[in-house]
Amino acid sequence: MTPRLLEGIRIIESANVITGPFAGMMLAHLGAEVIKVEPPNGDSFRNWDPKKKSVTPTFDVYNRGKRSIALDLKKSEGREVFKQLAKSADVVIENSRPGAMERLGLGWEVLREINPGLVYCFITGLGSWGPESNQPTFDAVAQALSGLWSQFTDLNSPEPVGPPMADQLTGLYAAFAILAGVESSRRTGIGTKLEVSMLASCIAFQGSNLATFLSDGVVSSRRTRAEMSQSYALIASDGLPFAIHLSSPQKFWEGLCRSIGQPELIDDPRFVGKSDRIKNYDELLGILQQAATTDSRASWLERLRVNDVPCAPILDVSEAIDHPQVRALGIIGYPSQGKPWVKAPIASDGEYLGAEVPAPLLSADADQILADIGLSEEDIAELRAKSVVC
Amino acid sequence: MTPRLLEGIRIIESANVITGPFAGMMLAHLGAEVIKVEPPNGDSFRNWDPKKKSVTPTFDVYNRGKRSIALDLKKSEGREVFKQLAKSADVVIENSRPGAMERLGLGWEVLREINPGLVYCFITGLGSWGPESNQPTFDAVAQALSGLWSQFTDLNSPEPVGPPMADQLTGLYAAFAILAGVESSRRTGIGTKLEVSMLASCIAFQGSNLATFLSDGVVSSRRTRAEMSQSYALIASDGLPFAIHLSSPQKFWEGLCRSIGQPELIDDPRFVGKSDRIKNYDELLGILQQAATTDSRASWLERLRVNDVPCAPILDVSEAIDHPQVRALGIIGYPSQGKPWVKAPIASDGEYLGAEVPAPLLSADADQILADIGLSEEDIAELRAKSVVC
Repeated sequence: MTPRLLEGIRIIESANVITGPFAGMMLAHLGAEVIKVEPPNGDSFRNWDPKKKSVTPTFDVYNRGKRSIALDLKKSEGREVFKQLAKSADVVIENSRPGAMERLGLGWEVLREINPGLVYCFITGLGSWGPESNQPTFDAVAQALSGLWSQFTDLNSPEPVGPPMADQLTGLYAAFAILAGVESSRRTGIGTKLEVSMLASCIAFQGSNLATFLSDGVVSSRRTRAEMSQSYALIASDGLPFAIHLSSPQKFWEGLCRSIGQPELIDDPRFVGKSDRIKNYDELLGILQQAATTDSRASWLERLRVNDVPCAPILDVSEAIDHPQVRALGIIGYPSQGKPWVKAPIASDGEYLGAEVPAPLLSADADQILADIGLSEEDIAELRAKSVVC
Repeated sequence: MTPRLLEGIRIIESANVITGPFAGMMLAHLGAEVIKVEPPNGDSFRNWDPKKKSVTPTFDVYNRGKRSIALDLKKSEGREVFKQLAKSADVVIENSRPGAMERLGLGWEVLREINPGLVYCFITGLGSWGPESNQPTFDAVAQALSGLWSQFTDLNSPEPVGPPMADQLTGLYAAFAILAGVESSRRTGIGTKLEVSMLASCIAFQGSNLATFLSDGVVSSRRTRAEMSQSYALIASDGLPFAIHLSSPQKFWEGLCRSIGQPELIDDPRFVGKSDRIKNYDELLGILQQAATTDSRASWLERLRVNDVPCAPILDVSEAIDHPQVRALGIIGYPSQGKPWVKAPIASDGEYLGAEVPAPLLSADADQILADIGLSEEDIAELRAKSVVC
């Protein structure tokens, strides 16, 4: 039995697609009770997949361990139920467009009256203020505007790449913000409204590249980290890709030169110090790539490891999941029935933590959720008859 | 005065470079007290920058709002001070190689005896168990092995791109894990050792792409998200890049066709449904790129917005920081003295939260930190004389 660190924390997640659900998923993985309040047609991500199954793999990964109720907030009875849910909870997570919840009479100012200790996490695209706060915003918009995308793509020939960075980062920052809000609420008895925006998340995540620009005016590009961190990607004689990350310690550089049988490079003035290797990155890359073509990936990794040089094969997702180290970690859950699933990357006592229960079917838990906030069977039947609860 | 959500939480950060410091930085931004315990020569990241200033921009961004003490843990008196610090704290963050703290007699089993409520967050590269857990691991190694990198690069011609994803994601997951541990410790009185690894973080962050593989065996590549999310990157007639993110709603597709003056495309069987647009991504990209070359970026963004299509310019970091929406958010702090700095992407009451105090010089706060745990001036002088505290 894995520990449920967040046992007893109750979350109302009225959120769609990825940002808000990602935050709820992280909290559910660590043992919080997460009630997903969905519109009558469900979280639009349920039908994202063209196959239109009720619970697609993409929906499951962001909604594991939650319970679901479909509630029509356009009806006054639906809004009343929502208020009761908010009253019963520690946290509300919300990601509709700025002003939408206020127009429904379910904004922070209303809910805090009902529940003074409530943490209200509002997740936005470009923020809830500023000249463009009402623009429709999806992942690529926030990545583009923030400068984050420019660190992944060539601006002269741009391409969208990678996972939904803006969405997921925002969800992760929000999960952190929520626990900070809960901590504050526990201490002071007073809740907080916190806002996490996709745009700000993508800006903050630029870390040292952004700090360097703010300090020195140096504009980073997609190659900046490779040069500064001394990371190299190479192709071996068998066509397989592998990576070397030299970082700063001189011993890694020396080990690399020995690995490729060119110890004379160690003191070569073009590469002798890290700053030289940064300056002459392309030249060194050429030398390394030429060496790489003389042997197989497996041999190179062996040679590099003998010399204690940080290295790894660059794997696709299927190879990664089968890698002995990944298998040994146990970050993927393999249930006796059903599909494998991904846990949180947080372990306790030798085991990664995660919600074993798959994502719920739409409104699967409505009766129990309503009974828990004190509604009678008759009340529930009436809400269903009026299509307030679906 | 911005709220300090984590006021009263005390963190001992015995961690180097990015992963652990990133976690401590997040906690400091939200008001926790973070004491950075550094080796006598300081966090190696202080000298990462070839310019070797004591506090470089890259060091500052990961270490704002902390206090610093340089402590020699190789000396028994240094270890004794460390134990007293751990006793005084809610959390210890640690990122040395597996087993290193145990060999010093400062592992979790020792510290929990001293402080039963302690949350001990151990940050590793590839995890603390498994066949490769002792490999030297930096950002590119974890990215490569996890499959995450394969979503950013062409495996036939791989390149390291982007910010230090593995490092920073791990720090962010760790910050979340720490607050979950504190919550659990508050509730039960019993602390926890939590482990966050770079490898697991990079795996978990693959989200829907990984879930789709685990469910259906589909191996995602760098283009998968572009296709599934219907994101397009285009170059306008003035050579400037911009992005469109169609997502699923049909109205965005219709708006796009109208924006480019080709409403007949709306019902074109090649593109009529989202699944068609996914299947014929390259063909649609070609049509859109051809249209893009007929007008300037500013005109395109205007036209797309009129039709409510999610879009944005793809900006570099300097352009992003100057964008009116980013300026309006206030995620960058502009102090009256000193350099601009980056806040946490979490706002309360219209203001993003962040530690206004820059990163400390090495051991700048040693005397105060030692006095706070009850050492006398004589004790401190003796520790300095013996070079236990530097």
